[in-house]
Amino acid sequence: MDMSFKPACTFSERAQQLTSSAIREILKVTERPEIISFAGGLPAPDGFPVAVMKAAFNTVLTDSPRTALQYGPTEGYAPLRKWVADDLNRKGAQVAPENILIVSGSQQALDLLGKILIDKGSKVLVETPSYLGALQSFSLYQPHYVSIPTDDEGLVPEALTVELTADARFLYALPNFQNPTGRTLSLERREALVQRCMQLGLPIVEDDPYGELRYAGDHLPSLLALGGQCGANIIRMGSFSKVLAPGLRLGYIAADRSIIDKLVQAKQATDLHTATLTQMAVYEIIKDGFLDQHIPTVQALYQRQCGYMLDAMDQAFPSDVKWTRPDGGMFIWVTLPPHIDSSVLLEQAIAENVAFVPGAPFYAAKPQVNTFRLSFVTVPEEKIRYGIAILGKLIKAFPR
Amino acid sequence: MDMSFKPACTFSERAQQLTSSAIREILKVTERPEIISFAGGLPAPDGFPVAVMKAAFNTVLTDSPRTALQYGPTEGYAPLRKWVADDLNRKGAQVAPENILIVSGSQQALDLLGKILIDKGSKVLVETPSYLGALQSFSLYQPHYVSIPTDDEGLVPEALTVELTADARFLYALPNFQNPTGRTLSLERREALVQRCMQLGLPIVEDDPYGELRYAGDHLPSLLALGGQCGANIIRMGSFSKVLAPGLRLGYIAADRSIIDKLVQAKQATDLHTATLTQMAVYEIIKDGFLDQHIPTVQALYQRQCGYMLDAMDQAFPSDVKWTRPDGGMFIWVTLPPHIDSSVLLEQAIAENVAFVPGAPFYAAKPQVNTFRLSFVTVPEEKIRYGIAILGKLIKAFPR
Repeated sequence: MDMSFKPACTFSERAQQLTSSAIREILKVTERPEIISFAGGLPAPDGFPVAVMKAAFNTVLTDSPRTALQYGPTEGYAPLRKWVADDLNRKGAQVAPENILIVSGSQQALDLLGKILIDKGSKVLVETPSYLGALQSFSLYQPHYVSIPTDDEGLVPEALTVELTADARFLYALPNFQNPTGRTLSLERREALVQRCMQLGLPIVEDDPYGELRYAGDHLPSLLALGGQCGANIIRMGSFSKVLAPGLRLGYIAADRSIIDKLVQAKQATDLHTATLTQMAVYEIIKDGFLDQHIPTVQALYQRQCGYMLDAMDQAFPSDVKWTRPDGGMFIWVTLPPHIDSSVLLEQAIAENVAFVPGAPFYAAKPQVNTFRLSFVTVPEEKIRYGIAILGKLIKAFPR
Repeated sequence: MDMSFKPACTFSERAQQLTSSAIREILKVTERPEIISFAGGLPAPDGFPVAVMKAAFNTVLTDSPRTALQYGPTEGYAPLRKWVADDLNRKGAQVAPENILIVSGSQQALDLLGKILIDKGSKVLVETPSYLGALQSFSLYQPHYVSIPTDDEGLVPEALTVELTADARFLYALPNFQNPTGRTLSLERREALVQRCMQLGLPIVEDDPYGELRYAGDHLPSLLALGGQCGANIIRMGSFSKVLAPGLRLGYIAADRSIIDKLVQAKQATDLHTATLTQMAVYEIIKDGFLDQHIPTVQALYQRQCGYMLDAMDQAFPSDVKWTRPDGGMFIWVTLPPHIDSSVLLEQAIAENVAFVPGAPFYAAKPQVNTFRLSFVTVPEEKIRYGIAILGKLIKAFPR
């Protein structure tokens, strides 16, 4: 027998179009210790509350091991669902625990929403640019993306015309410190957006992993809170990755019961439920207000890091480069003069041991290749200053 | 403005066909404390190694909190991948760590395989009956199921004709103590099956969550091990749910690199990666051979429980009822005389506070309604005897 013969699989159409993500490949390069990487989207480990985490896992495994280690309900651990609902309501929403589904990180929320809302060819509206991970996740369900215009203040509500939005399944929006741009939607635009979507009958998927990490300006009401006031259909995604730790893989979806019911059925088929132990440990950590004291320390850390980078950019970048000044979150978005392709700049930067993510993969259509994303949270100040100086030098020297 | 108006979502075609699973609805009833439930598929919490679990989480959060709580590689925690590969190789397979993808429980393996292997209308071969959770999971990708005949020894390899298998994407098989029947495929049938599938160019998805829980007869080689010898394309799924604890949500897929590569891309879009902390804690538990001492205690527990139920059935069930006598795992499959519909019997049983899962939902086509599944692992002996006596009484009294 020919031992080397092995029948191949016939991959699905969606699998055939899967390619390894640009970011993923870049991150492999940036794992080399000599690289100063502004490419990652990793939260700063200095912000992980290790001691309380350890105590919480210990408490849960001491007090309730048989529940924590057993299969649990697909909807999620009931006290945690209630905590999320209460927390959203404190911030202006009107939801019940039954409106909450606990998920295995925000990325799973994207997958489940893709599963229940996208057919092959369905129109899905996204910001220009948008979060790469969402584009990848939805793409498995083969939507037709329509890119909604944005400006320095983010999404332009007036761009949502009847014609553009006809038959769209939903609009995917990140109102706070958007990934990749760091932009925040103003209160006026939020109000206009939910009003318009309500009139258009267009559901909004509000992705808000960074909302708590605001270190400048005032907290703004979520689209969910505003939608509750006018009857718009808002599906909100949130995450514990940035306020506690991403390695736990814990997030939530808040939505109308009719949507949660479908999501629960989809999640049951997808992974049965999110790890019970993790849910119970996180609830143990947060139930008595821990986040109220913890989040300010993370905010201060991120604000400091952001300040280092903006200061370095002010010094090192030439005047024909534009960039955002985020009020929170982890990212700064850079727009280069039109003659510079950021993927070419990246090659030069990596040769000098500096990395970032080029802008193109964040666009659902017509990429603007003179853009890139910088992440500032995990790099020490001196390396930020050194790395940004290198980028400034390369930009200035870039051939016209 | 009409505050009660809320625009509805347009659900995807796959979401529209989602319905709450029959088992799920039954389990809701069986949560009432007065119910003696043989319906669950829950492992026995007495088998959870709580003390070592607690120590492992503590160790990982003490020694490596910044890795454990951070984002991790989609493929999984490298030492755990190596452990799984080594473990499979000890049992006759020939795989490298690169052939292993760590997943968030076996159910996620099913979802990822559906994602990369099933298009709408793709032919998928399943056993008759098959695991309900797999049917649900694959169904999200809208396959065309073909049910492969089985007998008391499980799947019949000769039934896999060229015609029946033409253009099939894969065969889904559970060789050990199958859910729902408890049947085990003999060594001869395993060999015949992998030979045949190799010749047919048909990939096999081998689902083996219970393989370690054998308490009678000899361990048989996995399809993966046999496939490695003859060049058949075997995709193996395994789980830590039954040998450690299901609440952790941890499993793996072993497959050819070309398949793992696609699965990794699909998993990245699905949930980025499985919780780092959980993977590290489980590795901490198992790295020095803990399972070699732990699994026998679980086996002994399950064997005892199985014995109670078989003994009770021998005493209480009339002679025209047939049932399987499993060599391992958690389930016994009952075939009633043709005049008894098990869903009607279930109604009568619930009225007397006893529950089981009717057989129909385990069939991809043409359900045999005079069948049902019994799970014996979590019910105390006295309740097993009492509950089975009730079922025996109801079966005997069932109107012809």
